[in-house]
Amino acid sequence: MANKNVLIIGAGGVAQVVAHKVAQWAAEFGDLHIANRTQSKADAIVESLREKGHQMPFTSHALDAMDAGAVEALIRQVDAKIVINVGTAFINMTVLEGCIRAGAAYIDTAIHEDPAKVCETPPWYGNYEWKRREDVAAAGITAVLGAGFDPGVVNAYARLAEDEYFDKIDSIDIVDINAGSHGRWFATNFDPEINFREFTGTVYSWQGGEWRENRMFEVGREWDLPVVGKRTAYLSGHDEVHSLSARYKDADVRFWMGFGEHYINVFTVLQKLGLLSEQPVTLAEGQKVVPLKVVKTVLPDPASLAPDYEGKTCIGDLVKGTRDGNPCEVFIYNVADHKEAFTEVGSQGISYTAGVPPVAAAILIARGPWDVKQMANVEDLPARPFLELLGEMGLPTRVIDASGDRSI
Amino acid sequence: MANKNVLIIGAGGVAQVVAHKVAQWAAEFGDLHIANRTQSKADAIVESLREKGHQMPFTSHALDAMDAGAVEALIRQVDAKIVINVGTAFINMTVLEGCIRAGAAYIDTAIHEDPAKVCETPPWYGNYEWKRREDVAAAGITAVLGAGFDPGVVNAYARLAEDEYFDKIDSIDIVDINAGSHGRWFATNFDPEINFREFTGTVYSWQGGEWRENRMFEVGREWDLPVVGKRTAYLSGHDEVHSLSARYKDADVRFWMGFGEHYINVFTVLQKLGLLSEQPVTLAEGQKVVPLKVVKTVLPDPASLAPDYEGKTCIGDLVKGTRDGNPCEVFIYNVADHKEAFTEVGSQGISYTAGVPPVAAAILIARGPWDVKQMANVEDLPARPFLELLGEMGLPTRVIDASGDRSI
Repeated sequence: MANKNVLIIGAGGVAQVVAHKVAQWAAEFGDLHIANRTQSKADAIVESLREKGHQMPFTSHALDAMDAGAVEALIRQVDAKIVINVGTAFINMTVLEGCIRAGAAYIDTAIHEDPAKVCETPPWYGNYEWKRREDVAAAGITAVLGAGFDPGVVNAYARLAEDEYFDKIDSIDIVDINAGSHGRWFATNFDPEINFREFTGTVYSWQGGEWRENRMFEVGREWDLPVVGKRTAYLSGHDEVHSLSARYKDADVRFWMGFGEHYINVFTVLQKLGLLSEQPVTLAEGQKVVPLKVVKTVLPDPASLAPDYEGKTCIGDLVKGTRDGNPCEVFIYNVADHKEAFTEVGSQGISYTAGVPPVAAAILIARGPWDVKQMANVEDLPARPFLELLGEMGLPTRVIDASGDRSI
Repeated sequence: MANKNVLIIGAGGVAQVVAHKVAQWAAEFGDLHIANRTQSKADAIVESLREKGHQMPFTSHALDAMDAGAVEALIRQVDAKIVINVGTAFINMTVLEGCIRAGAAYIDTAIHEDPAKVCETPPWYGNYEWKRREDVAAAGITAVLGAGFDPGVVNAYARLAEDEYFDKIDSIDIVDINAGSHGRWFATNFDPEINFREFTGTVYSWQGGEWRENRMFEVGREWDLPVVGKRTAYLSGHDEVHSLSARYKDADVRFWMGFGEHYINVFTVLQKLGLLSEQPVTLAEGQKVVPLKVVKTVLPDPASLAPDYEGKTCIGDLVKGTRDGNPCEVFIYNVADHKEAFTEVGSQGISYTAGVPPVAAAILIARGPWDVKQMANVEDLPARPFLELLGEMGLPTRVIDASGDRSI
């Protein structure tokens, strides 16, 4: 059987990493394609692959991924068997629909969002993706949701904890610390529109068997993590809480994101003034404008941060529970380095940690173990093959428990 | 001779004050008219006059004041003899042109600005207004520039110092402190677009017989003023420096604006991110948007601050020089109260201090002493009748010198 053709949708910082990783692991796949609304951005990624000496660059395509028919047509045209969707979060449902119609496997790294809504009713996956479960199963395709780092790898960490460390899990605290520095006055590490949308709505956490609601920056806690040391992280809303809470109903599931005071100040000013609103305002001249889109436009392109980015990220799951009747605690984590990421694939560490996992997922679909012919979140799939492959691909997993700090 | 008909252009917070003051002093004028791009805002002002029991409300008109022909036509239609321009700073030249063509007196309160330019070469008046001096004289009309509080009353304070306190003036430091509180998280006291444009460009001051350039918030100084006490004010660019420096060539002329840390923080975030830019940016979706106009839209309407505004403003000129060969120093100032302003005319104190002076100027034109049939800045005109009339109208002038603190 011929190797499976791959189609990447999107051409931002994460797509750059995905493309380089797919190219590095090209032997696992068939033909390589990359499509984006603005084709020249896809071309720039192809060019960066050539500069790295990759023999098998991608064919680029212009694609309006908000048009399911256009997605379907491109999948059929290039005979793609695996679609890696790393475009904006607004295109998930149309890309998934294109995959269902054309019979291709689907992988994404973040939850679907409606441009006009922020922070919908939990669980977020229930508003869009999970409504297509039966259709995905009926089409006989595999759809892996949220296969970036967080969500994605941190979901696999929870599953690894379930499989190998615990009889019963009482709490899962996911902590995301970026201790790197980009040297700009202010920038977001990924699409500002998506970044800010994460923090303007209600912060949902799953505690005591129910959804709890907080405001952003309302609940902070100091963490002391490997490599990055003591850092303050804040209870935040995040995709993985909305799927892990379904599998681990009896556990508390929380997500903590690290922020410095400067970020919080800028965020607070923008939010208080109403500049992070996704709802259009009407200017005196009559023009209708979404303020958040203007903020996005004036901020640095996250991809442009890569050359100067220094320092490390630490993202992991602190899992508490019992084993053989005894209470125990495990921290499963990865440390990534911004400069190493840039040297390897031309992207900063945040894009790197988000972009490598969907390629590992694609490889596991191509090889078989994850080709489950249904819709799945990452914690529904075998964790060890995924984490071991990620170790080979540049994102090693470590664990700290009573026995010390070691590789899994 | 019949009393002179008045046409107010604009319907913001300052126009509200102008309309109420004209109505209070209606015996000085003929028919009253108010024109605005959005006529309903002019209607709201007329309604507020009726609520105060004024017998002679304004007739409202819709007017595109960027169209000199439309301005001329309206002036002719209503037979206006005095036009008080308190619309946006972008319309000065078209309104002035309309006045020249139709033979009406012209009064404004702020310098003309080109929407696409910030902080042009000094002196600012030389870029637009002063180029029309000959045309104004040829038309035989009176045009009083910058007749608000600052510029305006502070220019008259300088002239009063020249006339009554000094043989030689060495320095004029204008200090503007708003010690009031509007209770909002953040708001500007007048049109945010004009407010921010004042501070994003080069700060020009006239020192040592030449233009000096600084950045906003680069030079701060603590002042200890009557009523408002110790406050930090920052060297800022402002209209009056650009005319006073022409009359007082041998004096240093500086403008200082008081700011709290919160204002500076918000301003700094917006400016550093590029959100105060008057130059359009292109969104990912292709739409061209001027960031500053979006900021203006999301901020509170300055007029809406009035009901909750408390506290006082202190604005004055610290003048140093010599008299009879001895060094001397005078502080000429006004203190205004936000709540009193709201009670009287339904506007906050900043609008009040800006809106009363052009009405005093209109009365002095109607009565004769300021009907000079040429273009003039306020310091070119007799100061005492203006300041005495302002005292009667609600903006009393006080002076502090070696003899103490007293009314002029």
